[in-house]
Amino acid sequence: MRLAELSERSGVPIPTIKYYLRERLLPPGHRITATQAEYDDTHLRRLGLVRALIQVGRIPVATARQVLAAIADDSLDHHMRLGAAVWSIPHGQDPDEEDPATATAHRTAEALLERLDWEFGRETGARSPAYRMLVAGIATMLRLGYPCGIEELLPYARSASELAVTDLDLVERYESEEEQVEAAVAFTVLYEPVLLSLRRLAQTEESNRRFG
Amino acid sequence: MRLAELSERSGVPIPTIKYYLRERLLPPGHRITATQAEYDDTHLRRLGLVRALIQVGRIPVATARQVLAAIADDSLDHHMRLGAAVWSIPHGQDPDEEDPATATAHRTAEALLERLDWEFGRETGARSPAYRMLVAGIATMLRLGYPCGIEELLPYARSASELAVTDLDLVERYESEEEQVEAAVAFTVLYEPVLLSLRRLAQTEESNRRFG
Repeated sequence: MRLAELSERSGVPIPTIKYYLRERLLPPGHRITATQAEYDDTHLRRLGLVRALIQVGRIPVATARQVLAAIADDSLDHHMRLGAAVWSIPHGQDPDEEDPATATAHRTAEALLERLDWEFGRETGARSPAYRMLVAGIATMLRLGYPCGIEELLPYARSASELAVTDLDLVERYESEEEQVEAAVAFTVLYEPVLLSLRRLAQTEESNRRFG
Repeated sequence: MRLAELSERSGVPIPTIKYYLRERLLPPGHRITATQAEYDDTHLRRLGLVRALIQVGRIPVATARQVLAAIADDSLDHHMRLGAAVWSIPHGQDPDEEDPATATAHRTAEALLERLDWEFGRETGARSPAYRMLVAGIATMLRLGYPCGIEELLPYARSASELAVTDLDLVERYESEEEQVEAAVAFTVLYEPVLLSLRRLAQTEESNRRFG
């Protein structure tokens, strides 16, 4: 398809697509004349992913380029490509390492991963962005005087495990490895607002059940 | 305790506490002389909550004041106070009502709540911020060409129900109604980054189990 059709089918304006092409967030089309290029379903899909990262994930363009590079890196095996792509999605704040609550939070997070027997998380532990985000989150709770030890965290971690099964089931619906890695990144980012809104609606239900 | 001790025990600098007092995010202390006031554990707890809303939730000061007003409104029954307080926490983007995907998303969200028999969510449906956030999230998925129908959403909703049970169990550890409502708001906001980071760590584990 030509640029105009790619724009129409994706809902992304032509100038924005041109910008993504210049920024190498989108692979170039197949040149057919000096001024025209042809695009295919790969471009359409990739455009959806770029929108997801930049508009929903509010990820800077330079970072989005790294995430896409991880998806494209076929020197890695399947698990590692999935991991590298999701790994490179930026997370919230990093923990403040000077803060005494952070030291406690590190010990809590380590102990939690050990109790859950999450080996991969532990091996790559201190360096993973998701792990750093977890430590920062625990430290904030502790600093504000709210309970956040292993006993409080375990039920959240068990729900997270179920969510990950749901996520990976959706990912496995796709056939090619590249589509699976793209979908993993998209679902990680796009299902976050869905999940958080469902949690708030469920809280209302549960509160009604207990106190209504 | 005096202002200096409140600052030391909360970790919040004195000028910031004074700012919160001026902005009525914190109730005034009990005057003991013309220039000195006495603060108690209520102030310490409220200070933690204000920090949670403003620093972690990145909620504007004017909105934080509304959330705190909902907590303080004892004309409501317990469930309504909890609901009003969590309700007034701002959510992500509102759905773009002009967008055709939003119409589909509304129908999907309605059908999901009906299937789940989440009565309270349906009654207050169209107006609840969490519901609007859900519709916006579904619409984004659809616009980008990712699957987001009832079948995809149901497992996420079931995990959300479990999370809500965990949340309310934590809330019920507190004795007074005011502490419970404060804790509900704090846990809603503060456990979001914890939950999202645990989901990403769990995705890595699950990916390792399937493809590693």
